[in-house]
Amino acid sequence: MTKQVHYSDYLQLDKILNAQALESDLLQQHAHDEMLFIVIHQAYELWFKQLLFEIDSIAGIMQNPVNDNSPELQTVVHRLNRMVTILKVLVHQIDIMETMTPMDFLDFRDMLRPASGFQSWQFKLVEAKLGLKYQHRHGQEYYVSQLRQEQIDVIRKVESEKSFIELLNAWLERMPFFEETDNWINFRATTTTPALAEWDGGHSPFWTDYRNIYSTGLAEAEQNNLQFFDSVFSDAAGTEGRHLSPRASRAALFIMLYRGYPILQLPFQLLNSLLEIDEQLSTWRYRHMNMVHRMIGTRIGTGGSTGRDYLKGALDKHYIFVEIARLTSFLIERRKLPVLSPEMEKRLGFVS
Amino acid sequence: MTKQVHYSDYLQLDKILNAQALESDLLQQHAHDEMLFIVIHQAYELWFKQLLFEIDSIAGIMQNPVNDNSPELQTVVHRLNRMVTILKVLVHQIDIMETMTPMDFLDFRDMLRPASGFQSWQFKLVEAKLGLKYQHRHGQEYYVSQLRQEQIDVIRKVESEKSFIELLNAWLERMPFFEETDNWINFRATTTTPALAEWDGGHSPFWTDYRNIYSTGLAEAEQNNLQFFDSVFSDAAGTEGRHLSPRASRAALFIMLYRGYPILQLPFQLLNSLLEIDEQLSTWRYRHMNMVHRMIGTRIGTGGSTGRDYLKGALDKHYIFVEIARLTSFLIERRKLPVLSPEMEKRLGFVS
Amino acid sequence: MTKQVHYSDYLQLDKILNAQALESDLLQQHAHDEMLFIVIHQAYELWFKQLLFEIDSIAGIMQNPVNDNSPELQTVVHRLNRMVTILKVLVHQIDIMETMTPMDFLDFRDMLRPASGFQSWQFKLVEAKLGLKYQHRHGQEYYVSQLRQEQIDVIRKVESEKSFIELLNAWLERMPFFEETDNWINFRATTTTPALAEWDGGHSPFWTDYRNIYSTGLAEAEQNNLQFFDSVFSDAAGTEGRHLSPRASRAALFIMLYRGYPILQLPFQLLNSLLEIDEQLSTWRYRHMNMVHRMIGTRIGTGGSTGRDYLKGALDKHYIFVEIARLTSFLIERRKLPVLSPEMEKRLGFVS
Amino acid sequence: MTKQVHYSDYLQLDKILNAQALESDLLQQHAHDEMLFIVIHQAYELWFKQLLFEIDSIAGIMQNPVNDNSPELQTVVHRLNRMVTILKVLVHQIDIMETMTPMDFLDFRDMLRPASGFQSWQFKLVEAKLGLKYQHRHGQEYYVSQLRQEQIDVIRKVESEKSFIELLNAWLERMPFFEETDNWINFRATTTTPALAEWDGGHSPFWTDYRNIYSTGLAEAEQNNLQFFDSVFSDAAGTEGRHLSPRASRAALFIMLYRGYPILQLPFQLLNSLLEIDEQLSTWRYRHMNMVHRMIGTRIGTGGSTGRDYLKGALDKHYIFVEIARLTSFLIERRKLPVLSPEMEKRLGFVS
Repeated sequence: MTKQVHYSDYLQLDKILNAQALESDLLQQHAHDEMLFIVIHQAYELWFKQLLFEIDSIAGIMQNPVNDNSPELQTVVHRLNRMVTILKVLVHQIDIMETMTPMDFLDFRDMLRPASGFQSWQFKLVEAKLGLKYQHRHGQEYYVSQLRQEQIDVIRKVESEKSFIELLNAWLERMPFFEETDNWINFRATTTTPALAEWDGGHSPFWTDYRNIYSTGLAEAEQNNLQFFDSVFSDAAGTEGRHLSPRASRAALFIMLYRGYPILQLPFQLLNSLLEIDEQLSTWRYRHMNMVHRMIGTRIGTGGSTGRDYLKGALDKHYIFVEIARLTSFLIERRKLPVLSPEMEKRLGFVS
Repeated sequence: MTKQVHYSDYLQLDKILNAQALESDLLQQHAHDEMLFIVIHQAYELWFKQLLFEIDSIAGIMQNPVNDNSPELQTVVHRLNRMVTILKVLVHQIDIMETMTPMDFLDFRDMLRPASGFQSWQFKLVEAKLGLKYQHRHGQEYYVSQLRQEQIDVIRKVESEKSFIELLNAWLERMPFFEETDNWINFRATTTTPALAEWDGGHSPFWTDYRNIYSTGLAEAEQNNLQFFDSVFSDAAGTEGRHLSPRASRAALFIMLYRGYPILQLPFQLLNSLLEIDEQLSTWRYRHMNMVHRMIGTRIGTGGSTGRDYLKGALDKHYIFVEIARLTSFLIERRKLPVLSPEMEKRLGFVS
Repeated sequence: MTKQVHYSDYLQLDKILNAQALESDLLQQHAHDEMLFIVIHQAYELWFKQLLFEIDSIAGIMQNPVNDNSPELQTVVHRLNRMVTILKVLVHQIDIMETMTPMDFLDFRDMLRPASGFQSWQFKLVEAKLGLKYQHRHGQEYYVSQLRQEQIDVIRKVESEKSFIELLNAWLERMPFFEETDNWINFRATTTTPALAEWDGGHSPFWTDYRNIYSTGLAEAEQNNLQFFDSVFSDAAGTEGRHLSPRASRAALFIMLYRGYPILQLPFQLLNSLLEIDEQLSTWRYRHMNMVHRMIGTRIGTGGSTGRDYLKGALDKHYIFVEIARLTSFLIERRKLPVLSPEMEKRLGFVS
Repeated sequence: MTKQVHYSDYLQLDKILNAQALESDLLQQHAHDEMLFIVIHQAYELWFKQLLFEIDSIAGIMQNPVNDNSPELQTVVHRLNRMVTILKVLVHQIDIMETMTPMDFLDFRDMLRPASGFQSWQFKLVEAKLGLKYQHRHGQEYYVSQLRQEQIDVIRKVESEKSFIELLNAWLERMPFFEETDNWINFRATTTTPALAEWDGGHSPFWTDYRNIYSTGLAEAEQNNLQFFDSVFSDAAGTEGRHLSPRASRAALFIMLYRGYPILQLPFQLLNSLLEIDEQLSTWRYRHMNMVHRMIGTRIGTGGSTGRDYLKGALDKHYIFVEIARLTSFLIERRKLPVLSPEMEKRLGFVS
């Protein structure tokens, strides 16, 4: 190759390193910590761009039928894990912000109005692409009032497209195993009753069997877990307000239960990395909330909100993969698991 | 010295390394991950012991009148910062626990009943010694039902003694400065009205002046911050349910405002490290809560509680130093600060 | 279950929390920081015990022929990753030690002679079980002089048994693929010469082909990389001082190159986690070395060594999986990779 | 304020988020991981800019005579600690880079030649501003050959100006205490001999006294530590190749020894934060070196160097504050410290 690439050109450092203009300098009231404030937000936005880039690539792969152990699935898991690693650094980065004391922030805070971290449309895009819809957002009106129209348009467009969790649902629904045949478990006649056999529309004795074992293991105080179980897995359950269909939920639980089989190893890693992403996002919001509280107390933020309250509201509502997380409630001990038939074991990649 | 110390004896490794007996081995159903479960809890308890040791040493120092820039105060700050460093590792350590999957936990979970992390009386002691009283605890009855009588007795005894935050209050109240004289600021006649002069019982024109500046800077939507201001700093305010008196609160705010003066540097570091401790404790509870949710979902914990709900309840209620954190709400810009008189500057250690 | 398990009994906290006896208290010269010194070393030893427990379980699995995508291999990878997570916390834990200043250490340092962190036989066991032999240790004589005979015996016994890296070598050698047939790649006649076909004893045209591509891609200044290549992969190469045979090395490189194929996904994760373990161990030694330097400078340690020099010597010599790490030198661009035949693709688990 | 500041304008996100052009896209061989490669380097450069900004502000303060407990000194310590916090995140950020596997890097590596991380002139500026001179750099010629002339000029200019460590030396030399009077310690006649009194040119009996105590405490094997002691503290010692004069070194040691006195508290924190900075820089280089080794093995880097060798060479040579670190070698136990006279105690801010 004859072209000579130079580090500073390649990284376009003339742009990157000349994008810091302090408002406090414009107003001739230089506030030292404003540089930190700008740089850290720019670093966050760079990483948000990277997160979006990874999500788009993953969604691109998931849009096509993905074989459960194809190289593409490995790529999906790898990139989700990269997102987790990035999010951990973003959480750590709050330590840097916290070296700014409230008094130091006050030196330039008023000069920034009405700018606010709330206006990071890239972060909202991350949430939207993963699966957060407008109607589930905390503080919807505020959200519309703060962003520019073109930014709202971009987010709305993303909200109207297939999100990652919808692609995930489709992928889980495609898993063939347990719906198609009656004979893939070693029937345990004692635990299956005709009544239960009706439970999921007669598709699979596995789930009626499983429901029975689960039900037996519940403590007295846990009885409404069984109703919850039915509402998640039964085909009679409505789909209102949920991302994962009963069928997809059954597939996900099956993956968790039998994750040791070759064909389920990557799918299990995939589900696990989604929980990690939610957890890191959640930790980020929580530490962010604490930081805002420490910085401005009960004062109103530069964007006009009581910053802490907004973040607190989002804490619970913005979990994307909560439906996967709660499947944990439905696990049973490994030694009580229905034993799969040799035929099924073979299909799951186990070669004796 | 003639005595020969050996590493293994010195660390009593025969005790430490022979204190892991797996219930699943006793029941001849070896569950590999139970070792991790034991070891990580033991590591936590070791560190809790260290935290208690540091708190006791700090309280010992604070029980005596502490000069504001004595070596002892430096020691207090140093040890509080060490506690922060330890807490950060404890938060990080949750990563290790999360390498245990819910299915792996199920292999031995039932064997542990009714043991529960809730029974860590050392952690409760940490909270109590810092300042959390029984009546402010989330889930008081549960707490009594779970611990052994001798453990409850220990905690109750600590609750009846002077906690760290009470020692802190006394120390802040001892700060002499602003109560004793009318003349230590450069009076800004324009901002002080007779009405305001009455505000803190006539002790100090500084605070009436300060209140005026603060009030002027409040946005329209923030007007109830002024009532809040009065409820925190005015001597007319009751003391019901609070740890810091108006006098101590004024001293703490003064420290934040004028932290640059030599005599206030260590006091400022001290207040800051307390906020760090609360934040790390809070992050620990939050990640802990998420981990429990991921591990058992909505099932009932081994101790009989819905673990996640308990932890969630504690999140807000167990902040110890919230009264310091909220002082941030009352800061004003540095350039608007009342200018101190040369006499006062000298007392604060500033040598021109 | 009728047995009632209690947290404090289960964790044997009476042992764990009563194993801290300060030498400085015995000598009636209480040194506050000695408690930290004891507790942190005990925490380290607890985690070393856990690391040993994981290594033993992994070695137990690897001793049997492990199918390349069996549940057992997944377990191996999972536990290696857990070890990485633990090691990261151990590195972080050095932050706590560093809250002890040199002057604070001096308060009790002389009382500990000749105890020394060097006497942690558990850490030496970790190294030995992974694959470090006596003759490759830095400072062998010192090592013998410091430990007790029974501890030396334990380590020597482990050194004489199959270490993890030897089990790894056997596992890699068992991989069947490329040795058995001439026809599993799409022959690229242009790049293969008869001379090269001789290269690995005629077993496989793949490697002669690969060597040719690799050789072509080397810059002029890199020509001795080719000799290095031959010394690693050619059967003519001696086995003196190496853990991985040419055959095993070829298998490992193949895994790195074609990691996308289903059957190679877990093996790739396994190799990767070994590099992580070495890297974390190395970072631990490095930060440890810096800490010792900061603590005692060029003085001689309590055990009689110049602590820093020992640790520095160990830095390079104690890499266990260096032979895997250096395989990176032999990678070629993905687009230049020999294309596998459909038959081979099928064997690697790819279903078209 | 009537001006309306918007988040995206304020952060100039149009520049920041449009500065990623993939070489692999230009060559129509899209390599997914190149985006990560660009973004992470840009994030590093943003933080290097922030580090430079902090160093400049600190140097600006130190250029003026700084009172030992003035607000300015507190600002210096605060900003040095911020630098430590930033460096910790930069070290952590390597985790993200390590999610790129060697094969993924190969997909675009050749397209970047001869660009190289070595061309980060900002990082070289950080080193230069702290105190690293051209003649102490590892690989000087390489350094000149890689950078652009204007970048070399900038670094050379900085090298010719007063670096931070030179300002530190001057500040330490300004400390008045022990040079001026014979009477500020409680003379311990038994330990002082006339011969020793000559040691530092007769300026101060303190140091002759101290040298005697130190010498007595040395083990037999440590005798050349005494020569080292003399070479560091004696005025007869040459100044060739050193940053800190004997006088400044004495002041720094005195600060470490008597750090508890009010006036020495901030100076002690300052010295400590410098050691932290060196340690984080060193950990960064070490992990960086390991990462490069893992990524390209023994191949030659895009910039033409064997990347790992360069970084390894820099490891030892680029410590900036090594002269402060090694003072640890000269500490003595607190209980053996010369007792200061009441007059001196008063000057150090201790009010009885």
